[in-house]
Amino acid sequence: MASPEIETLTQSLSRLPGFGPRSARRAVLHLLKKRETALDPLLAALTAVSQRLATCSTCGNVDTSDPCAICADPRRDTRQLCVVEEVADLWALERSRLFPGRFHVLGGKLSALDGVRPEDLTIDSLVARIAQGGVDEVVLAMNATLEGQTTAHYIAERIETYPVRVTQLAHGLPVGGELDYLDEGTLAQALRARRPVA
Amino acid sequence: MASPEIETLTQSLSRLPGFGPRSARRAVLHLLKKRETALDPLLAALTAVSQRLATCSTCGNVDTSDPCAICADPRRDTRQLCVVEEVADLWALERSRLFPGRFHVLGGKLSALDGVRPEDLTIDSLVARIAQGGVDEVVLAMNATLEGQTTAHYIAERIETYPVRVTQLAHGLPVGGELDYLDEGTLAQALRARRPVA
Ligand SMILES: [Zn+2]
Ligand SMILES: [Zn+2]
Repeated sequence: MASPEIETLTQSLSRLPGFGPRSARRAVLHLLKKRETALDPLLAALTAVSQRLATCSTCGNVDTSDPCAICADPRRDTRQLCVVEEVADLWALERSRLFPGRFHVLGGKLSALDGVRPEDLTIDSLVARIAQGGVDEVVLAMNATLEGQTTAHYIAERIETYPVRVTQLAHGLPVGGELDYLDEGTLAQALRARRPVA
Repeated sequence: MASPEIETLTQSLSRLPGFGPRSARRAVLHLLKKRETALDPLLAALTAVSQRLATCSTCGNVDTSDPCAICADPRRDTRQLCVVEEVADLWALERSRLFPGRFHVLGGKLSALDGVRPEDLTIDSLVARIAQGGVDEVVLAMNATLEGQTTAHYIAERIETYPVRVTQLAHGLPVGGELDYLDEGTLAQALRARRPVA
């Protein structure tokens, strides 16, 4: 029905996470009808990002510069290093604005099932960063999954000879979490890690 | 956190229908991580559409050519003309592949509330197309809303002096239903059972 160019655009959009064929069609229609306010700005933004897209050779973040804005920021505390599985996790932590240090993106997690071994992740370069010195604390911010925790334990062992404090995110009830709705694993973690009431 | 270019891209995407800030961030992350398979194809598709985007001067469809692919297709039955409110409705009917004729997009519907008068829609050019001759049937495929039906009645009156059969979609449409949201089966039934305007 639509021209090949419009079909191709619809297909490209429908492959984005959160988009299906139907929402992609609606978005394309919106873009076609709102050229000045929707299509042109999106095209300009995509072009700008595409021209400058880079993976940070220090931390693995994706940004429009290398080093990335975080690694290049002199106000970041270089003594704290937060290790995450994926760029998405880095972004989630950045949105919280709670971590003042820098990051290291592993590019995944160890997984026997998926055949992901230590050399498939950026663990060697993490160890090299720590070996350079200047880092006081390494925060292992892996997901609270079996594979995430396996990865955290593996990294903790790899860096135990360095004079750094190795910490991990607390496990327990999410804020607003109701006991009745939580899975058993979360409940068990929260119970095991119970603390004295202040 | 992210660079200005990435922030701008996130904002452009978050303004698309069906997208919010959260899903836009996920989509941007996907684009950044999958340059070859996601970002580059989307950029190329947007560029191609942007360079050739046109509103069909015959029917009002948006496409990458003028006349649009439908108006230019010699296999379409020029004796049947389907009048719709919006381009989205045209696309919905095209997806059903049930209407062999051509279209006319009004660009909206008559509305006392929103101050939309006949001269704000493409009704004059519709009448002109019918006056040229060659059209046997005009299918009024307005939405089954009060304003849609008001618009249909107005058009029926405007063209009653021409030797054309004027029909409308059967009222198997749910009350308040908009074409763009209907499943294909309902659309097909409504089209098959279309009736002369009383
Ligand atoms: Zn970096
Ligand atoms: Zn056309």
